[in-house]
Amino acid sequence: MEILITNDDGWGVQGLMVLARHMTRLGHVTIVAPDGPRSSMSNSISLTKPMTMEKVDLSDCADFSDEEKKHIDAYITSGTPSDCVKLALNVLFGDDPSRIDLLVSGINHGSNASINVVYSGTMGACFTGCEHGIKAIGFSIYTHEQPTDMSHFEPYILELTRHLLDEPWSPLQCYNINAPLGPLKGVKWTRQCHGHWEKEIEKRADENGKPLYWMTGTFVNEEPESEDTDEWAVANGYVSVQPCTADMTRYESL
Amino acid sequence: MEILITNDDGWGVQGLMVLARHMTRLGHVTIVAPDGPRSSMSNSISLTKPMTMEKVDLSDCADFSDEEKKHIDAYITSGTPSDCVKLALNVLFGDDPSRIDLLVSGINHGSNASINVVYSGTMGACFTGCEHGIKAIGFSIYTHEQPTDMSHFEPYILELTRHLLDEPWSPLQCYNINAPLGPLKGVKWTRQCHGHWEKEIEKRADENGKPLYWMTGTFVNEEPESEDTDEWAVANGYVSVQPCTADMTRYESL
Repeated sequence: MEILITNDDGWGVQGLMVLARHMTRLGHVTIVAPDGPRSSMSNSISLTKPMTMEKVDLSDCADFSDEEKKHIDAYITSGTPSDCVKLALNVLFGDDPSRIDLLVSGINHGSNASINVVYSGTMGACFTGCEHGIKAIGFSIYTHEQPTDMSHFEPYILELTRHLLDEPWSPLQCYNINAPLGPLKGVKWTRQCHGHWEKEIEKRADENGKPLYWMTGTFVNEEPESEDTDEWAVANGYVSVQPCTADMTRYESL
Repeated sequence: MEILITNDDGWGVQGLMVLARHMTRLGHVTIVAPDGPRSSMSNSISLTKPMTMEKVDLSDCADFSDEEKKHIDAYITSGTPSDCVKLALNVLFGDDPSRIDLLVSGINHGSNASINVVYSGTMGACFTGCEHGIKAIGFSIYTHEQPTDMSHFEPYILELTRHLLDEPWSPLQCYNINAPLGPLKGVKWTRQCHGHWEKEIEKRADENGKPLYWMTGTFVNEEPESEDTDEWAVANGYVSVQPCTADMTRYESL
């Protein structure tokens, strides 16, 4: 198998390296990651400025064993997660998506459940995979701490990937997987919880007294009692597996 | 009615000013627009840097009549289209989405049909409206030329807005409206066409010979014969009205 990996937290973060290490057990891994944080960049792509893309010398990289390094090529780019997928596809795989058997994105540090899925750069990369007919899975873990203990989640990564690859895939389909901190009770298939952010803007003055506005906020779960949502699953110790689509049509309205 | 307007082409572009002018006939208009182009920024939000937001003095603005100006307040921000919605909601409307009766975004210069909907900043603003329970409609016209003749499309703007406001709205629902150049044959309700971009990366060297990668490409319609798609509608002289959802769940897989 040929596995493409990207993320939105940037090259070198724990989640990316853990994901790549596990994926070497499935086949050859190509990492194309941003050169720094690209959180909440959604499906953003770089239309107005050129991008860089450079191969990473892994010889001194302590995250992978010598055996793992034999199965990994890595690149960093100045682009967004969606840019990384498009750069990989065009520059490394001859604009032929059939040469990529699987795209995995993450492991994101933070939640991509509920409405966060539309802002997530991790999932933006997956929706770009959908555009090109590439099977795509996004992984997230509910903590921003690094390093963090991911050992409870790690056994699920390959098991879920293998299981989902065996499922039927429709056009524009992908998966959004969210894991809480351990211990884990198992896996739940979920839908997107209805929720929103509130008190999102904090006003502070700059040194000249001019107002500046910072994004912050508190997430509000609008249906905390619903047991079929991604938020309920992670709040109750389960890995949430949300089947997603990049088809934005609301068919019930047609 | 209180109508919030934003776009992804930035303050002052023809599409925004035309949309605002028509919306003054429905009620009071608050424009919160980016200070420059934000095309293809999707649902991107600014987590890592502060934003500016300043009121625009409309007294010398030639796009609006004196009568229209009585019904318009305008602001420009350094943020993305989704940031504009969140800034407006929090800073101008006390974090109370019930004070905004309608969000309109656009008129975008270019296509937001097919897979472009997931990259569009215009539609990103609408999906942010969805998050907060605000009724949202995105408008696009199939040309990047400015100024361009929009007179064929203008009569549809208020008629469609009034019609859609009378429809039932579900949580996370919004609309993506795309218009071709004239003349128009009418309106079609549509679904998202399956399509993708190819040959998207152009490699050019900088002055030191270092490779730089530019986003470009050609859109490929994967189902040109399907008559129920947004691409078919605009290619055949109809205004496309696509009901959308910010719920990314693929329910058929559950």
